[in-house]
Amino acid sequence: MPTAYLDNNATTRCDPRVVEAMMPYFSEQFGNASSMHEFGAKVGDAVSKARKQLQALIGAPFDHEIIYTSGGTESDNMAILSALETQRGRDEIVTSAVEHPAVLSLVAHLEKTERAKVHIIPVDSAGRLDMEAYRKALSPKTAIVSIMWANNETGTIFPVEQLARMAHQVGALFHTDAVQAVGKLPINLAESEIDMLSLSGHKLHGPKGIGALFVRKGVRSRPLIRGGHQERGRRAGTENVPGIVGLGKAAELAAEYMQEEQTRVAALRDWLERSLLQAIPNSFVTGDVENRLPNTTNIAFEYIEGEAILLLMNREGIAASSGSACTSGSLEPSHVLRAMNVPYTAAHGAIRFSFSRENSEGDVEQVIAAMPGIIEKLRDMSPFWRERENASSAEFNPTYA
Amino acid sequence: MPTAYLDNNATTRCDPRVVEAMMPYFSEQFGNASSMHEFGAKVGDAVSKARKQLQALIGAPFDHEIIYTSGGTESDNMAILSALETQRGRDEIVTSAVEHPAVLSLVAHLEKTERAKVHIIPVDSAGRLDMEAYRKALSPKTAIVSIMWANNETGTIFPVEQLARMAHQVGALFHTDAVQAVGKLPINLAESEIDMLSLSGHKLHGPKGIGALFVRKGVRSRPLIRGGHQERGRRAGTENVPGIVGLGKAAELAAEYMQEEQTRVAALRDWLERSLLQAIPNSFVTGDVENRLPNTTNIAFEYIEGEAILLLMNREGIAASSGSACTSGSLEPSHVLRAMNVPYTAAHGAIRFSFSRENSEGDVEQVIAAMPGIIEKLRDMSPFWRERENASSAEFNPTYA
Ligand SMILES: Cc1ncc(COP(=O)(O)O)c(C=O)c1O
Ligand SMILES: Cc1ncc(COP(=O)(O)O)c(C=O)c1O
Repeated sequence: MPTAYLDNNATTRCDPRVVEAMMPYFSEQFGNASSMHEFGAKVGDAVSKARKQLQALIGAPFDHEIIYTSGGTESDNMAILSALETQRGRDEIVTSAVEHPAVLSLVAHLEKTERAKVHIIPVDSAGRLDMEAYRKALSPKTAIVSIMWANNETGTIFPVEQLARMAHQVGALFHTDAVQAVGKLPINLAESEIDMLSLSGHKLHGPKGIGALFVRKGVRSRPLIRGGHQERGRRAGTENVPGIVGLGKAAELAAEYMQEEQTRVAALRDWLERSLLQAIPNSFVTGDVENRLPNTTNIAFEYIEGEAILLLMNREGIAASSGSACTSGSLEPSHVLRAMNVPYTAAHGAIRFSFSRENSEGDVEQVIAAMPGIIEKLRDMSPFWRERENASSAEFNPTYA
Repeated sequence: MPTAYLDNNATTRCDPRVVEAMMPYFSEQFGNASSMHEFGAKVGDAVSKARKQLQALIGAPFDHEIIYTSGGTESDNMAILSALETQRGRDEIVTSAVEHPAVLSLVAHLEKTERAKVHIIPVDSAGRLDMEAYRKALSPKTAIVSIMWANNETGTIFPVEQLARMAHQVGALFHTDAVQAVGKLPINLAESEIDMLSLSGHKLHGPKGIGALFVRKGVRSRPLIRGGHQERGRRAGTENVPGIVGLGKAAELAAEYMQEEQTRVAALRDWLERSLLQAIPNSFVTGDVENRLPNTTNIAFEYIEGEAILLLMNREGIAASSGSACTSGSLEPSHVLRAMNVPYTAAHGAIRFSFSRENSEGDVEQVIAAMPGIIEKLRDMSPFWRERENASSAEFNPTYA
């Protein structure tokens, strides 16, 4: 059984206090939120309370701005498809090359089926958006811009407020996939131009299978899933009451720990990063270290394979990730590192360490103790490492530790 | 706090054994099903096991025929939208007038936006499908037929195997919304022509927020929600592991109790029905009593209002439903009773009693003791009741008890 879990961007442990909050809604208060009888009465109150807790975390002024969904992916899909329906006479989508597949594979499908023209904005080698390309892509044909708040692999934060303002100048809606940002960064939608925002419960110590889409008051939306009148007719299906209550509790806790995330958690991350870069040659951090989630570091160890690194880490009781868990199953480097033009010899050996409030100094010590040996062992077996003198990394100049 | 819960077609109590099975997957085995490291390893096994449990309940030969969704509504939406995409050159949908809104409001939207031509097949006064109209509606243009296995309000069972054969004769796909049938009726998809089948966890003592779409091997499908590679690329989004495990356990238990559902539960329902019809004048059963779910009776009490009945029942600790919970909020009689041409004076006073394995004889006694008084009290206040001598029910002749 592993003891250092550093894969919190993939999924987090459901906080036991969240589970406790959910429990009564499985077998005691099990009624439908919309039922007449008393089996449903307290359920409606619990759902309202949860909505307030989530509103508080993201600063959403109105309770009807929160639409519960089954997770981040559904929220992303709904935002984009909704905009194509409501934004009459506009059929273009602007997004970035480093979005999650929940955005990229949807827009690829829309492009292929000729339902939208898609502009994919590139990023530079630090994962920062090409602002000039963004500006040029925006036009009166843009229905929606969808740019993530923070990237799941590198933690790079995008200037969403500025991007939203620019989108509004051409009359486009602005959606942000904030699945990795919510709970890690202070968010105040009351003072924001963002029209729609996606989040997912299991990324903030809440349950899997629940998420939400924030849709600002006054912004029209269309259901992705049609049926009964739940969520004011905007998302049909019997409400996932335990999930909603759990997400509410998770939001409340995330607000409580927000300060700690920026300080203690960030310090653990920085300590690990510094130590590994010092101890291990030919390693460097990918992404924008100036604008980054407090919990994430993505370190490329040159000339070796990420999957092999993970395997040996796993034997030492350390859980982390190479590329995004969602795209695993392929041996290609992740689309994020490719978009950043990280050379293949490095991108293949990139490991994402993602922390949470549940991590301790002990976790960091464990990783610092284990990693240099793991990397050395693998490099000893790597033909690329032995031939590295000849390898060229001309197009890419990271700052080595 | 009510003590007789007879609203199991709205939602069921999550079986404590289901909750127990889910528990380890919140805060202990919380990894992603697709992760490399050990936090995810046991999770993959649990998901596989749950799939087998569900396969066993519905007789699905292959594990990849089960696609997990967020519930019955998403499954219904996915089935219909998928067929429109895969069935090239066909753009017609055939469905019934008594489907759940998860089907009817979707197809209404598709018709309105000119993405499909929709044939809505009527039912007779007992809720049975007009087979002649069905035959006529089928054509080489039919992309998909979607007819429910059993109706949620009356329990009426449809001849889905025959309907599927007929659909196949014109090359259409056959989907059935079996949300109310799964767990209540024996189902064996191994010997069936059904192409797609929807089900929902919370209707069979499983959790809310999880469901599945069965898609027969060889039947092409398209995702409704796009993103990562989960569910073999057919339904994106981090798997709701506790929900999946809970649905698996619920399926296992439903199989165990299947016999009891047909015998003891049906007997409780019959006893209640017989007693109420005898004790209360001007009351009759709606739907097809010859072909009905074992747990459901829908009784119309003439000349009074269902909502008022429910209110007084609630005071006596009895939970039931008038029309479908999903369509509540409106004071119109449900679309199901309207499609059956139940006269307004009766349809307004229709109450659905829906049982489950958790009901006891005591529940039935409680309802038998309370109902006659409730109905009499309301009728005493009803102007319609006093004028009933003049009221005409020429178009509709139910058999009174
Ligand atoms: C026949 C039928 N179909 C579909 C649904 C929708 O299921 P869910 O609410 O789980 O999405 C229901 C229940 O509400 C139902 O009774
Ligand atoms: C940035 C981002 N967006 C969307 C998602 C999808 O969320 P979910 O898997 O909960 O649907 C994820 C996580 O997998 C993510 O990291």
